[in-house]
Amino acid sequence: MPCGMGCQALDTRAGRAQRAGMHFKSDNASGVPQEILAALGAANDGFAPGYGDDALMGRVRAQIRDIFEAPQAEVFLVTTGSAANALAIASHCPPWGAVFCHALSHIEMDECGAPEFYTGGAKLMLIAGEGGKITPDALADALARGGVASVHQVQPGLLSLTNLTECGTRYSPQEIAALADLAKARKLPVHLDGARFANALVAEGCSPADISWRAGVDVLSLGGTKNGLMGVEAVVFFDPARAWEFQLRRKRGGHLLSKHRFLSAQMAAWLEDGLWLRLAQQANDAAARLEAGLNARRDARLRFARGGNMLFVDLPRAAHQRLKQAGAQYYLWPDHASPDGPPDIAVTGRLVTSWNTMPRHIADFLSALGPQDQHG
Amino acid sequence: MPCGMGCQALDTRAGRAQRAGMHFKSDNASGVPQEILAALGAANDGFAPGYGDDALMGRVRAQIRDIFEAPQAEVFLVTTGSAANALAIASHCPPWGAVFCHALSHIEMDECGAPEFYTGGAKLMLIAGEGGKITPDALADALARGGVASVHQVQPGLLSLTNLTECGTRYSPQEIAALADLAKARKLPVHLDGARFANALVAEGCSPADISWRAGVDVLSLGGTKNGLMGVEAVVFFDPARAWEFQLRRKRGGHLLSKHRFLSAQMAAWLEDGLWLRLAQQANDAAARLEAGLNARRDARLRFARGGNMLFVDLPRAAHQRLKQAGAQYYLWPDHASPDGPPDIAVTGRLVTSWNTMPRHIADFLSALGPQDQHG
Amino acid sequence: MPCGMGCQALDTRAGRAQRAGMHFKSDNASGVPQEILAALGAANDGFAPGYGDDALMGRVRAQIRDIFEAPQAEVFLVTTGSAANALAIASHCPPWGAVFCHALSHIEMDECGAPEFYTGGAKLMLIAGEGGKITPDALADALARGGVASVHQVQPGLLSLTNLTECGTRYSPQEIAALADLAKARKLPVHLDGARFANALVAEGCSPADISWRAGVDVLSLGGTKNGLMGVEAVVFFDPARAWEFQLRRKRGGHLLSKHRFLSAQMAAWLEDGLWLRLAQQANDAAARLEAGLNARRDARLRFARGGNMLFVDLPRAAHQRLKQAGAQYYLWPDHASPDGPPDIAVTGRLVTSWNTMPRHIADFLSALGPQDQHG
Amino acid sequence: MPCGMGCQALDTRAGRAQRAGMHFKSDNASGVPQEILAALGAANDGFAPGYGDDALMGRVRAQIRDIFEAPQAEVFLVTTGSAANALAIASHCPPWGAVFCHALSHIEMDECGAPEFYTGGAKLMLIAGEGGKITPDALADALARGGVASVHQVQPGLLSLTNLTECGTRYSPQEIAALADLAKARKLPVHLDGARFANALVAEGCSPADISWRAGVDVLSLGGTKNGLMGVEAVVFFDPARAWEFQLRRKRGGHLLSKHRFLSAQMAAWLEDGLWLRLAQQANDAAARLEAGLNARRDARLRFARGGNMLFVDLPRAAHQRLKQAGAQYYLWPDHASPDGPPDIAVTGRLVTSWNTMPRHIADFLSALGPQDQHG
Repeated sequence: MPCGMGCQALDTRAGRAQRAGMHFKSDNASGVPQEILAALGAANDGFAPGYGDDALMGRVRAQIRDIFEAPQAEVFLVTTGSAANALAIASHCPPWGAVFCHALSHIEMDECGAPEFYTGGAKLMLIAGEGGKITPDALADALARGGVASVHQVQPGLLSLTNLTECGTRYSPQEIAALADLAKARKLPVHLDGARFANALVAEGCSPADISWRAGVDVLSLGGTKNGLMGVEAVVFFDPARAWEFQLRRKRGGHLLSKHRFLSAQMAAWLEDGLWLRLAQQANDAAARLEAGLNARRDARLRFARGGNMLFVDLPRAAHQRLKQAGAQYYLWPDHASPDGPPDIAVTGRLVTSWNTMPRHIADFLSALGPQDQHG
Repeated sequence: MPCGMGCQALDTRAGRAQRAGMHFKSDNASGVPQEILAALGAANDGFAPGYGDDALMGRVRAQIRDIFEAPQAEVFLVTTGSAANALAIASHCPPWGAVFCHALSHIEMDECGAPEFYTGGAKLMLIAGEGGKITPDALADALARGGVASVHQVQPGLLSLTNLTECGTRYSPQEIAALADLAKARKLPVHLDGARFANALVAEGCSPADISWRAGVDVLSLGGTKNGLMGVEAVVFFDPARAWEFQLRRKRGGHLLSKHRFLSAQMAAWLEDGLWLRLAQQANDAAARLEAGLNARRDARLRFARGGNMLFVDLPRAAHQRLKQAGAQYYLWPDHASPDGPPDIAVTGRLVTSWNTMPRHIADFLSALGPQDQHG
Repeated sequence: MPCGMGCQALDTRAGRAQRAGMHFKSDNASGVPQEILAALGAANDGFAPGYGDDALMGRVRAQIRDIFEAPQAEVFLVTTGSAANALAIASHCPPWGAVFCHALSHIEMDECGAPEFYTGGAKLMLIAGEGGKITPDALADALARGGVASVHQVQPGLLSLTNLTECGTRYSPQEIAALADLAKARKLPVHLDGARFANALVAEGCSPADISWRAGVDVLSLGGTKNGLMGVEAVVFFDPARAWEFQLRRKRGGHLLSKHRFLSAQMAAWLEDGLWLRLAQQANDAAARLEAGLNARRDARLRFARGGNMLFVDLPRAAHQRLKQAGAQYYLWPDHASPDGPPDIAVTGRLVTSWNTMPRHIADFLSALGPQDQHG
Repeated sequence: MPCGMGCQALDTRAGRAQRAGMHFKSDNASGVPQEILAALGAANDGFAPGYGDDALMGRVRAQIRDIFEAPQAEVFLVTTGSAANALAIASHCPPWGAVFCHALSHIEMDECGAPEFYTGGAKLMLIAGEGGKITPDALADALARGGVASVHQVQPGLLSLTNLTECGTRYSPQEIAALADLAKARKLPVHLDGARFANALVAEGCSPADISWRAGVDVLSLGGTKNGLMGVEAVVFFDPARAWEFQLRRKRGGHLLSKHRFLSAQMAAWLEDGLWLRLAQQANDAAARLEAGLNARRDARLRFARGGNMLFVDLPRAAHQRLKQAGAQYYLWPDHASPDGPPDIAVTGRLVTSWNTMPRHIADFLSALGPQDQHG
């Protein structure tokens, strides 16, 4: 029996997802689980203090401190990953600073220069590396090249890592620590773009602290949006020294919401009872299923070791064309790859699964791939 | 009968508001009406294109064009008024530009320098004026002083008006046109900060076009948050020439949401069947009731002509202290006014009503004012 | 006896100045004394290290430390006062900072937004005050209004004073100390725009230390250009903590000259044996002479107490017109004052003397004033 | 026979240069020819209008228009190449723009982020290429990768070339035109960093127009400092549309000199009767002599084709050590190359000649190289 307008809409689990079909473009194309809508409803309780002074934000802060075993941590919410990254970086890197990051990182490739804008013109120092990962040798080399104390060059500012990486691979805590140690030896702070932090975390099976501050991360962009929220990201300062500066930068950037409780409510529900981990596990499981199906084919070749919920697969162009015709949605990689050309030449597809990717989405996709091509 | 988790939370109309008591701090301390929650639920429909390419955004665009009789208008959504203002201004004013605005305007007083940040260092040229309003004479004078074509001074960039003003007063379409004409004579674009545009609109009783582009407004920050949304503001470009630049600035500012449909859904529901106007009317009606109650008292003096849903009232300090003790919430004005001091000296309270301010909130407030003081 | 091309040009003292006539527009319209040209010639000695590593810069540093009794001071040279001010301010004030300064200050009125540009969008908080001077009461009031620790407003950043002021008046060491004390109580650094520091210094007759760091100044723009150099200003950091940041900002701003020795050479010669003080004294003496001549007239009224080498005089418009016709050069004040209008209404002229203003320039000016008007 | 203070200093041609010995660090370590000092003396003629309104600037403008056969060109002077480049680029590239440039370009490597600062955070898109030169293929590839019209990436902004390049090689007019054509097909403006434009010009033996605007250059940084001036660079706008914006940016950047005539005087003298070309020829001739001497050795290998006055030479480390011991001054390349290590492993020296490099400097250098090493 319906309770009135809106109630049916909440019932997303049952029947909606299948309608959307084979959607592997991005985990940010998915919606939110019922718990998040419910939390919004519960938070819609008359008047409340704004701008982060809501009681729910206190709860979020306590949750993060508890989950990350970081009683000093400061936590702030914003609505996009670009804002989380750019504000976190700007709070740790001066305008004349160099941001050491992977050449494929989101901050370089997909934020229209947000880090440059927020820092006042810092320079991203791009480091190449297989599978979206920076190796200690590559970082050491970049630091040697870019780390001269000279007034003529931008000065070492910050190391920014991404986990999961843009290629869907994963850093272990040990790998992060090895990179962070090199940065710390230069007194550089370490930022982690964790748009898919939860996916990395559950795949790694370690504690949140192990793969963040214990490995040397100073400030974390903890992504919620790609993992079940409407547009909520937490910035976690394990060292609170820069927290006040961050708050001023956030306001000045137009990222402090007056009705902040609606961000807090989502984040609190997401962190509650491990919902965020379950959602990430669902996405990773879907990717594992897809991986297995692709591995069973002669004409498919996975490009990188799967770290969580993202795959890059080389397929004959003909196979891609069949998939597209069947309605499968995903990006070619890199962006400017062309879907046109000889059918037997492989192109690369980026496939991202979400918390609400269903087994039948995977099955439909694998089936739409069709017969295995000869020249895969 | 409850339909499951989340449904009760939706039922905000009935019983919640009274719990919050006498809350007159800001209209952004209120929640959202049931229709908005329902729209979020309905939009949570599996996978959807992100970043503004959602179908609901098409609907919003069509609604705005229709409502404003502006078929060429371009429309973009962001989550805060500061972002709407700063991005709109930056899209029309160079770094070396002067933004002519009232000395009490939100962009000057309450955005931590967001316009300066987004423009790359433009200068706000403050114009005084009774009740938060700029007069044509004052604007003409400011343009004469600040409008010299010289390389030594910032150059005229933009006129930014606010309606309702920060003092709760209102510009008529004719008043806006008189100011815009002066700006246009200097080839300056005109921005309108419409955080409370709906309140002004319903009070004025004119058409949306009359009080915006027909009066000379080029770009409008159309506020939804203070009038029933969770954090959604539309930026309306009546002249679409700057729209692409705006989009790049929005992305670069971290204000382009991936799950954009959740903004669109709110805005679409708000604009549907005049909900936005009804909500604004409710807030204005509450303010009128409060105004009447205060006018009936010897010791209360309203400072400015009420334009919509905001009042500034001089009361003896003793009266203020009684209100505070009774739990009434509102700001003293200006910010640094002190609640301490001789009880018979008047201080000014800023009282803002919301779409969900109830008659009993008003009654409770007036009752808590207590006996009329001698030296009001 | 000429030594070849160029030598005659050096001989500026003898005959050139009179050709320029009655030039009172600005002290930056004058040239340089022979000693400066000679120093350039002497510095043109084959190859030399660049970018401030020249031996002459070591000499300048030692001179400044000695003259200011500040052995820890760091010193840097740039070519304009705007650069000196903006770089000094940016090194002490964050993008979200408020720069407290006089409403008529050069950084507000005459630098096309350079402080906003270099700080990344800081806000100038304008303080009114008679004769270009800030009073302790006015500063205390501004600090009270602008000093609230709130994320919604820019935060107190810096106090910037100017001595001589833009109205030609002068702060005593005691006056500066009273203002600096208020700033220091808020932990704000103090900047002094000393474009005419030497003029103030010799007029005050105190030590350089007394009217700078001993009075609470943290960073000084020590102007050379208006007092006999071609375009050389020193920025003196009495507290060297920010010196490295300044150097990076200077380079990044394009203000680090490769052939830096040609700046050092000028500054070293200027500081040598008190040349800078003698030049300032010459300019002040000329202003005193002009002041005496104007005071002897019924129709002239000096607006502000003369602090050094700058006068503001009210004269009947008819007298101004006679002066202009006779070729006298000076600005009306304020900038947008009109030379046209009723002849008996006074307008204000700004008269600036220079190190090379000759007695006959003064005499010619006073003579060109003509008969005393009735309605002065 | 001395004429008084300063005259000897002017006599730079005769005896000074040899004292400085083997100085090949940079052409900006040299001084200025006598004509420039003489011009400064001549310009020191009493009072003069400031800020670029001096009569000499009119002469410079006319000279440039004449020399470049560009009657519409606008010309502005600044004191550093970094300022010239950054201001020129910022006047043509928005904050969200991509500046396509060589990976070794000065704007990327040696300006501490000045382009990022002046543009408000544009992104330099680095293009690799042998000998500091960009090939059409490499540019076409970069434009394909970086030229997608998407809100997620910075948008194509500008092509910036350098001639002479940072490796001392040279673009011909045809090569510039081929690159400019690719840029123009994308509607991108073309900037030329001409810090050593004169060296390229005289080596190429073409007209200034041929190697600038006729080849597609829209705005030129015409370097004077490295070729005999104290710190003067002209920015030439062949298309004057952006000239007013440039002037505001220059002022705001603190780069508009009040005593501007001292810049104009140098530039006018430099352009007069081809002095700038003779100075460049002298530097090029010295480099040719040095090249010949190095080519005669078994153990020296020149890295790049000499374009003008700069050589990169591989020498056994032992030879470098002998040179250093003998007092030769030059940089190793790249910056972080180490002078220490096995003596028979080659390291690369960067050798720059200047207008005042004497034959005996070259002879001394070649002689200090000593006996030819076995394992060169």
